[in-house]
Amino acid sequence: MTTDNKIQANHAHAFKDDCVFPPEGDLKIRWRAVQKHLLEAGGDACLITTTVNIYYLTGMVFTGFIYFSVEGDPLYFVQRPIGYEGAQIVAIRKPEEIPDLLKARNIPLPKNLFLEGDQITFSELLRLATTFNPENSGNATTILRKARMIKTPWEIGQFRISAAKHAEAYRTIPSLFEEGMRDIDFQTEIERQMRKHGSIGIFRTFGGNMDIFMGSLLTGDNAGMPSPYDFALGGGGMHPCLPIGAAGEVIKKGNSVMVDMAGNFTAYMSDMSRVFSFGKLSEKALDAHKLSMEMHDRLMAEGKEGIACADIYKWSLAMAEKAGFGENFMGLKQQAKFVGHGVGIEINELPVLMERSKDLLQSGCVFAFEPKFVLPGTGAVGNENTYLITETGIEKLTVLAEEIIELIG
Amino acid sequence: MTTDNKIQANHAHAFKDDCVFPPEGDLKIRWRAVQKHLLEAGGDACLITTTVNIYYLTGMVFTGFIYFSVEGDPLYFVQRPIGYEGAQIVAIRKPEEIPDLLKARNIPLPKNLFLEGDQITFSELLRLATTFNPENSGNATTILRKARMIKTPWEIGQFRISAAKHAEAYRTIPSLFEEGMRDIDFQTEIERQMRKHGSIGIFRTFGGNMDIFMGSLLTGDNAGMPSPYDFALGGGGMHPCLPIGAAGEVIKKGNSVMVDMAGNFTAYMSDMSRVFSFGKLSEKALDAHKLSMEMHDRLMAEGKEGIACADIYKWSLAMAEKAGFGENFMGLKQQAKFVGHGVGIEINELPVLMERSKDLLQSGCVFAFEPKFVLPGTGAVGNENTYLITETGIEKLTVLAEEIIELIG
Repeated sequence: MTTDNKIQANHAHAFKDDCVFPPEGDLKIRWRAVQKHLLEAGGDACLITTTVNIYYLTGMVFTGFIYFSVEGDPLYFVQRPIGYEGAQIVAIRKPEEIPDLLKARNIPLPKNLFLEGDQITFSELLRLATTFNPENSGNATTILRKARMIKTPWEIGQFRISAAKHAEAYRTIPSLFEEGMRDIDFQTEIERQMRKHGSIGIFRTFGGNMDIFMGSLLTGDNAGMPSPYDFALGGGGMHPCLPIGAAGEVIKKGNSVMVDMAGNFTAYMSDMSRVFSFGKLSEKALDAHKLSMEMHDRLMAEGKEGIACADIYKWSLAMAEKAGFGENFMGLKQQAKFVGHGVGIEINELPVLMERSKDLLQSGCVFAFEPKFVLPGTGAVGNENTYLITETGIEKLTVLAEEIIELIG
Repeated sequence: MTTDNKIQANHAHAFKDDCVFPPEGDLKIRWRAVQKHLLEAGGDACLITTTVNIYYLTGMVFTGFIYFSVEGDPLYFVQRPIGYEGAQIVAIRKPEEIPDLLKARNIPLPKNLFLEGDQITFSELLRLATTFNPENSGNATTILRKARMIKTPWEIGQFRISAAKHAEAYRTIPSLFEEGMRDIDFQTEIERQMRKHGSIGIFRTFGGNMDIFMGSLLTGDNAGMPSPYDFALGGGGMHPCLPIGAAGEVIKKGNSVMVDMAGNFTAYMSDMSRVFSFGKLSEKALDAHKLSMEMHDRLMAEGKEGIACADIYKWSLAMAEKAGFGENFMGLKQQAKFVGHGVGIEINELPVLMERSKDLLQSGCVFAFEPKFVLPGTGAVGNENTYLITETGIEKLTVLAEEIIELIG
């Protein structure tokens, strides 16, 4: 990787298939983006330690720190695993060693050091601040989230891999259904197919208290159950320690089944929901699903650089209200206040398609759009797709039939 | 729940089987334990917001805060989900509302407020500290981890449910094997069985950078691959964004297969590893496995209240070295410096069985003991079991045959 390939070599046996490390040029695009935002925010340097940001900056995961000033390439201070070697790599036991190691390289200590204040714990940040004792400190989380919002060519390629496998795995769904199944039984079979198609399994989220396992499958009135989490829909869950998603409900005739499993076939997740039905759904439910498809059509027609994320939320809500589905939009009792969100290494990146967003769509944005409706007695309908904003318009990455598919028991 | 059952009623449809909410008396034991530690540390009150600690204190998950002084019962300030009602429950939109809500209840604001400094982000803690502006602040993470180290009767019952289902799921493992399978294929089938037996799926860990998906399955030399994480063993993983566990290796004749999947069938995880072999293992590998079993026997004979956790690590290491397996103990190139750890709502709770631990085993401790060996050309051997310290001795919770089971292709 980067200027030295020994990290790759170290792990070469393990990554056979799509094990694609980002080329150095692609990493440099990311480094320069971070440096640009850092400079704009008045920072001299940042020190990065969270898994997601280390992966973003290196294409690898290690326990340790990345030190990164506004000029030049980053240094990797690695605690674990042992054995990493390379020009940019310095083995350390603890972060307190870093200042002396920088001085030994004639790198001045930063006056304004940015740390990941919205991601690392209070104790961790205090330890780093005490170690570096900068005059000022800023929030590296903001910087990194801004940089990560605009995906690089290699990252976009990873989304394409995820989205294609995601669609392949979803194509197996109708064959997995049997009459009498509970939601969790159906989900378990879908999880297995996701894994067989290469799902890495873990579901990375930004922010505290956002637990979920692989995704959700909602049928019937469980789709309207409020959850503690800030996902689009809720569901009661199988246990009080994880009150989200499938709740052990038998899938009943006339009910919808919404499948929303994360497409984590690479580090870059595609997000896609599709709707199935056991028997026929009510006309009202079919109308609501059609409305969701119309919203996707509108996004495909109008989505491009410069469009305000807030506007997409506003016209989605307006279309829902005009069609008489305002009370069903994005939940029932508890309605999500967004209709989409950036995706990437985490499922909830920037931008957020919500009323108070100030972001404009930019080339390189990858985001999920998920206008959904919950209908009492039926369940959830509406699709979710992942889109890419290009220099010339918008592209749908999650290409898979969008009509409701009837399950045969 | 607790003094008011409306939270339970709210979710009643979702939790059919083992949905057991802790009885009020059991929660009170926990509240009093937290209050005792808080008082000893000089705190007036604590404000809790992480999922794991909210679950510990209430038996439920919500987004919000628990305010808790050294006397009386806690108050729940709930942001999400909507609709929770009860004497102890106050709906809020943001934490800045809490001080006035306390004053309205004639509760004086704390002079020394404890916050979860090792768990919540710097920004979150700063926001709460600004809101409450206490004279002093302490670390609620330490308090909660100490309290959670000693399990209550209801919590111990939850471990028993997890351990029994864990064993049932593991019994299916030999039937899932087929010659030519890769480690990840075998793991996928085991994951499915875990889910069919009721696994909740998520794998909660304490501390940053501890990603893992459901557990690990290690075969052959992949068992010796260093990982970035602080788990007992490593493994290269399937993708650079999650370098842990199964690596896509075909399971070969003469290799071991160590299965170490988290037993999260309730919120309280049992931890158990068992070893399988495809064909016969070398005499050396069988000897090492036997040595691990002897260590478990010694723990069963000597384990009781008052034993130093450090001593268990020391005699395990000494037994390994005496038998000539010092270089194979807990890894190869990168060796874990512990031989066990507390388990509970998170997989890595207190106490830790390591040299510098100052903890003594106490009645109510539940911990995993996992003396493992990695042998070049074979893989990992050695069992992991979960133990409970009782008033009179020690009990093994993960009861399942411990000999290596030969897989038939």
